[in-house]
Amino acid sequence: MTEQYRILIQCNDEKGLVYKVSSIFYHRNLNILSNNEFVDKTHNKFFMRSVVSGEADMEALKNELIAVLPVDVHLDVIAPRKKRIVLMATKESHALGDILIRYEAGELDAVIVGVVSNYDTLEALVSKFDIPFYTVSHEGLDREAHEQKVLECLSSLGEIDYMVLAKYMRILTPHFVDAYEDKIINIHHSFLPAFIGANPYKQAYERGVKIIGATAHFVNNNLDEGPIIAQNVIHIDHAYGWEDMQRSGRDVEKIVLSRALKLALEDRIFVHANRTVIF
Amino acid sequence: MTEQYRILIQCNDEKGLVYKVSSIFYHRNLNILSNNEFVDKTHNKFFMRSVVSGEADMEALKNELIAVLPVDVHLDVIAPRKKRIVLMATKESHALGDILIRYEAGELDAVIVGVVSNYDTLEALVSKFDIPFYTVSHEGLDREAHEQKVLECLSSLGEIDYMVLAKYMRILTPHFVDAYEDKIINIHHSFLPAFIGANPYKQAYERGVKIIGATAHFVNNNLDEGPIIAQNVIHIDHAYGWEDMQRSGRDVEKIVLSRALKLALEDRIFVHANRTVIF
Amino acid sequence: MTEQYRILIQCNDEKGLVYKVSSIFYHRNLNILSNNEFVDKTHNKFFMRSVVSGEADMEALKNELIAVLPVDVHLDVIAPRKKRIVLMATKESHALGDILIRYEAGELDAVIVGVVSNYDTLEALVSKFDIPFYTVSHEGLDREAHEQKVLECLSSLGEIDYMVLAKYMRILTPHFVDAYEDKIINIHHSFLPAFIGANPYKQAYERGVKIIGATAHFVNNNLDEGPIIAQNVIHIDHAYGWEDMQRSGRDVEKIVLSRALKLALEDRIFVHANRTVIF
Amino acid sequence: MTEQYRILIQCNDEKGLVYKVSSIFYHRNLNILSNNEFVDKTHNKFFMRSVVSGEADMEALKNELIAVLPVDVHLDVIAPRKKRIVLMATKESHALGDILIRYEAGELDAVIVGVVSNYDTLEALVSKFDIPFYTVSHEGLDREAHEQKVLECLSSLGEIDYMVLAKYMRILTPHFVDAYEDKIINIHHSFLPAFIGANPYKQAYERGVKIIGATAHFVNNNLDEGPIIAQNVIHIDHAYGWEDMQRSGRDVEKIVLSRALKLALEDRIFVHANRTVIF
Repeated sequence: MTEQYRILIQCNDEKGLVYKVSSIFYHRNLNILSNNEFVDKTHNKFFMRSVVSGEADMEALKNELIAVLPVDVHLDVIAPRKKRIVLMATKESHALGDILIRYEAGELDAVIVGVVSNYDTLEALVSKFDIPFYTVSHEGLDREAHEQKVLECLSSLGEIDYMVLAKYMRILTPHFVDAYEDKIINIHHSFLPAFIGANPYKQAYERGVKIIGATAHFVNNNLDEGPIIAQNVIHIDHAYGWEDMQRSGRDVEKIVLSRALKLALEDRIFVHANRTVIF
Repeated sequence: MTEQYRILIQCNDEKGLVYKVSSIFYHRNLNILSNNEFVDKTHNKFFMRSVVSGEADMEALKNELIAVLPVDVHLDVIAPRKKRIVLMATKESHALGDILIRYEAGELDAVIVGVVSNYDTLEALVSKFDIPFYTVSHEGLDREAHEQKVLECLSSLGEIDYMVLAKYMRILTPHFVDAYEDKIINIHHSFLPAFIGANPYKQAYERGVKIIGATAHFVNNNLDEGPIIAQNVIHIDHAYGWEDMQRSGRDVEKIVLSRALKLALEDRIFVHANRTVIF
Repeated sequence: MTEQYRILIQCNDEKGLVYKVSSIFYHRNLNILSNNEFVDKTHNKFFMRSVVSGEADMEALKNELIAVLPVDVHLDVIAPRKKRIVLMATKESHALGDILIRYEAGELDAVIVGVVSNYDTLEALVSKFDIPFYTVSHEGLDREAHEQKVLECLSSLGEIDYMVLAKYMRILTPHFVDAYEDKIINIHHSFLPAFIGANPYKQAYERGVKIIGATAHFVNNNLDEGPIIAQNVIHIDHAYGWEDMQRSGRDVEKIVLSRALKLALEDRIFVHANRTVIF
Repeated sequence: MTEQYRILIQCNDEKGLVYKVSSIFYHRNLNILSNNEFVDKTHNKFFMRSVVSGEADMEALKNELIAVLPVDVHLDVIAPRKKRIVLMATKESHALGDILIRYEAGELDAVIVGVVSNYDTLEALVSKFDIPFYTVSHEGLDREAHEQKVLECLSSLGEIDYMVLAKYMRILTPHFVDAYEDKIINIHHSFLPAFIGANPYKQAYERGVKIIGATAHFVNNNLDEGPIIAQNVIHIDHAYGWEDMQRSGRDVEKIVLSRALKLALEDRIFVHANRTVIF
């Protein structure tokens, strides 16, 4: 039976990579459905994402590819399946709600295994969609103790491919972030790297900007400085107070976050040198 | 000495094309600098643009590629050189001026061999840039007779790679268009296919649109219906009269036209089934 | 007790209108919180929207304004209240879902009195939000008979301020439209007036456009030609098939429709000569 | 004979301002052609720009307005005339060239009294347009000494309404800036406040952003932190090196700068608390 596979390659650039890879596909009778390559000349890195159809012994294919590719290669051969994701939120519903509606419509190639929040504000909304909701209150706990409880909650949910911070308003510790490297997608309510830190809309109002935006990025241990996945903006004018900016900004936030999630679920994102390559 | 070549391939899709092409590059010791492929599944067409460096016998390379590619193939092997272009205009200077300023800055990989107009309005501007200006008045002439004179003027300018209609306000006959198939780039002052025909801004005003745009496209024999190369838009509101739209629209027109020209000069545009594939 | 009022004025333009209106506000001790005026010079029409605070005898204020304004005036003095709206949909959930999430978050100054659909597909989704869902199937009925049943359903819902067609895929008859003039807001899945009619995304694909969009407009008796309220676009490229356009287009559709609805709920839209003036 | 006047009012907000101002217009028989008001509630400031036609004793009108307006008022009564502007540039021609082409087309309501540069690179271009070009080299001079020479050059050019820094790559001292408060318009090649300082495109590349932009702002004594007039952006992807960003960014820079200049020439910009109000 014909299957589809996604092959993701990231390695040092050298002559003949496309030839060597496509040669293996050809001789294994795999048909290329789509193919993207990019060479980052600054860092001398080669990136390739192929979608092929055919009948593959995935392990053998992987080994054959590794044999011809540079030793530093990161290689994935993926038979697409529903990814398992966890959503984290606090009190605002727009980004979370946008994902829930898409989920209900079958638009996401994923299973939402649960929503975790430090408040129970959104429990009523999430429960409508028959998704488990876990309130892990931070009250009376220091950051580490709270995170420990969140981590316990998460580990009870089984394997997780991506964690989506849908306006989760708590800062994560390095300990937490390290446990989920390049797996936590956050939406920052500004056009990064402008307005890093608290209340970006208030900062934007005071600076008198004419455009506001949102940034979806992977979380790393430098707050608001992880690899950027997607950004978008809207034009505003002097008549917007900061709450107006916030209200209008929510539309950008939710669309940008959902787009980043979709890219992740389709295995389209490579990360190198704190930058993303997206096919 | 190491040269760069652009290889453009357009043919029916079949298994192994990437392998066959990259194999030839590899065995001829050509290094792939960038590579783009796309399969149009609706029309079963394969498109590929590679930039390679190395030492190539272009004729031999071409023959070897043709030998392995489907018989319907359109193949180009190009050693980049300054393209020869002609600009055509009428009275408005914004689109023409934008190209002239870029040309003066050395931004265009092209030689402007002349500007042809049916009025002498822009002669003073063009002459500042030491570019020949040819007024071919249409007064007293029917369309065919006027075009005949334009064609004579053009043929006196030698080989032409692209003709750029920078707000040339005359309709071209099929005879003229056929002589320069996929070589005439026009800027249409609307977001095609909306507002085909005369005075699109007036039409847009009357329709009460909230966004206006511009479209750069190749000219074919269906007026305003040639393959689209680039489009962009700006937001407007009820306070814009049609002349305000026109004024604001000019900024979009000139940027879109210059972008389309740049894509053409870099051999990035394929045309098939009245659509463009752009790498 | 201090209340807020919205005063909407639309009349022939003449000298002194701002003076006369602001004079009445001043002498009635009403404070102007915001004020917008526009003169449509093409049609010689004056539009004004003021938000004032104070204590007003609304009937007396209205009479005093009418006494100084031209005889053709359309005047509204509105003490803001939750508008009563009905949503109509067919099978797609994105536009409807976006409104439901906003509604749940208390973002809409409205009461959704019901959702009417010609299929029961979205009943499960709507029911999650405790909003009455009415399936009025069109099967076996001609257009008039089906609409008659829809009208009966609607009239059972009481007074309605706005009807929102959130991807309702049925064409309305003049009889229906006349009953709700300038009260039916539709989202059209193209950048009107491009791609009027059936399957705009397929049309857009075939035309090879580089930008797609969505248009929210009031419905009138010329299909897809009612007054435009809001439009937006996204950039696409040759790699988008028409289903990809549709998928990406949904994000634009829902945001544009929700924005139009918000403008309507805040009494910011004037209609004249098939165009909108929006403050 | 009927003239047009622009009346600009900026003062503390209080009840009755619109009434008092429009009353004066009415009794002086001045017809309001357009009218914009805005109240900045954060700072309790009222802004109003009216364009009126009629026959006015400007001095008397001004006095009458001052008599009814709060004591902190900034009031301008302007009979539109061509503003006198100076352009400053260094080596890049795109922003300067865009202004020159508009100037040649009669699009700017201004007289360019000269172009000042610290290099002679752009002299050939500027001379084509019969505009005086002044090279004031900074070589061998410290910042103060160089600026002193620039100031001498500027003062030889007579009264100046606006100075436009069209990619002038020198930092101005407080002494210079104070001499031209809210009269110097700069284009910053980033989406401020992101990437303040040197080589914003390189910074943007390293941060891996997906959108780049440009900001036109008045210059004040905090480098890159003056009141923002206009901003715009373009989408980019991982394939853009920083020089590609720079090349693409130039299109945004020039359009944004020209738009800011147009707004200034039409007296549409108010400045308060480091923010602009733009009608």
